[in-house]
Amino acid sequence: MKLYTYWRSTSSYRVRIGLALKNIEVEHCHVHLVRNGGEQKADSYRAINPQGRVPALALDDGTVLTQSPAILEYLEEAYPDPNLLPSDPVKRAKLRSVAAIIGCDIHPLHNVGPPNHLRKEFGRSEADVGSWISTWLGQGFAAIETMIGDDGFCFGAEPSLADVYLVPQLYAARRFDVPLAGYPRIVRVERIAAEHPAFRKAHPSRQPDAE
Amino acid sequence: MKLYTYWRSTSSYRVRIGLALKNIEVEHCHVHLVRNGGEQKADSYRAINPQGRVPALALDDGTVLTQSPAILEYLEEAYPDPNLLPSDPVKRAKLRSVAAIIGCDIHPLHNVGPPNHLRKEFGRSEADVGSWISTWLGQGFAAIETMIGDDGFCFGAEPSLADVYLVPQLYAARRFDVPLAGYPRIVRVERIAAEHPAFRKAHPSRQPDAE
Repeated sequence: MKLYTYWRSTSSYRVRIGLALKNIEVEHCHVHLVRNGGEQKADSYRAINPQGRVPALALDDGTVLTQSPAILEYLEEAYPDPNLLPSDPVKRAKLRSVAAIIGCDIHPLHNVGPPNHLRKEFGRSEADVGSWISTWLGQGFAAIETMIGDDGFCFGAEPSLADVYLVPQLYAARRFDVPLAGYPRIVRVERIAAEHPAFRKAHPSRQPDAE
Repeated sequence: MKLYTYWRSTSSYRVRIGLALKNIEVEHCHVHLVRNGGEQKADSYRAINPQGRVPALALDDGTVLTQSPAILEYLEEAYPDPNLLPSDPVKRAKLRSVAAIIGCDIHPLHNVGPPNHLRKEFGRSEADVGSWISTWLGQGFAAIETMIGDDGFCFGAEPSLADVYLVPQLYAARRFDVPLAGYPRIVRVERIAAEHPAFRKAHPSRQPDAE
């Protein structure tokens, strides 16, 4: 399989973690989101993913899957060992709820497009963009802090889909200088993941396209 | 079960459609997102959902599930008949990709918080907010138009999880006056869903709290 990825993209980072946790080796195709006005917007890449975003996962038969939530659920179904979701439907929902807060309520607001719109169309300063990002990140993390457990990863000793979302979101929080002192459980997950081989392998700084 | 819902919330609307398609009857608890500064922010509601958002689904044993993507996947697992996802993992991923474009790339940008931030913190006009919403809705719909089929619902004769997300997003597009002439497949789904009893039952205008 081929993963279209960018080192600093948190949704690419999620998929890299999922692949690493499941010990799936894929070829990496690097799509530079800044260079040449954004390689993801080129016709050659839009032929792969019409939405012009990373990540995308090309299967061996050429089928291309897009959108990290869909790709991660696919990996869970097609490569169930090790599981990133428990078997009980209620527990799965609790875990997916943490993933959805990150995937739907935090990340979309600081993803490439909206901050650029604030800068270019609305003329906002970097301080304004920073407060915008902190607002959504803070609201989401405050909720997640009440939803995860008191030790280990988000939901216990083994990493799950919740951690696959949370760890890249923490990376973005550090990048945007969002204060994290109010979220001791979340910061604990960050610390534990930093020692785990799959999370280390998937980290932006270890990608060949890192700058 | 009890659904905490607001008539015009598109994520509540998604869950109402999922429940109606699966013929699941639930008690509706109305949370008014505008009245009294937003009833979802009250301590009494935060005791149910600490994130202070709708929808939330309280199960019979009192367990509360939050986040529409997590609730819909739960309903699919706990109440599999009729299925809203096909059995093939690749087809499931294609369908979830459409859902994710709406759930992650469109809806979060026009959800209550961000437009209010643009108005109150950044002093933007309603015209600016409208262009903001149209930008993300247009980008997302342009991608979805290339991903769905040529007749019936998004992926054929029967409604699926993709339609559960798309129809409420169309309702929001109409509400925000986003031009839809460039999306004939998407508009076809809207037309077909308008005749379907489950989509009719779940429509905002038919809710007891509609204004």
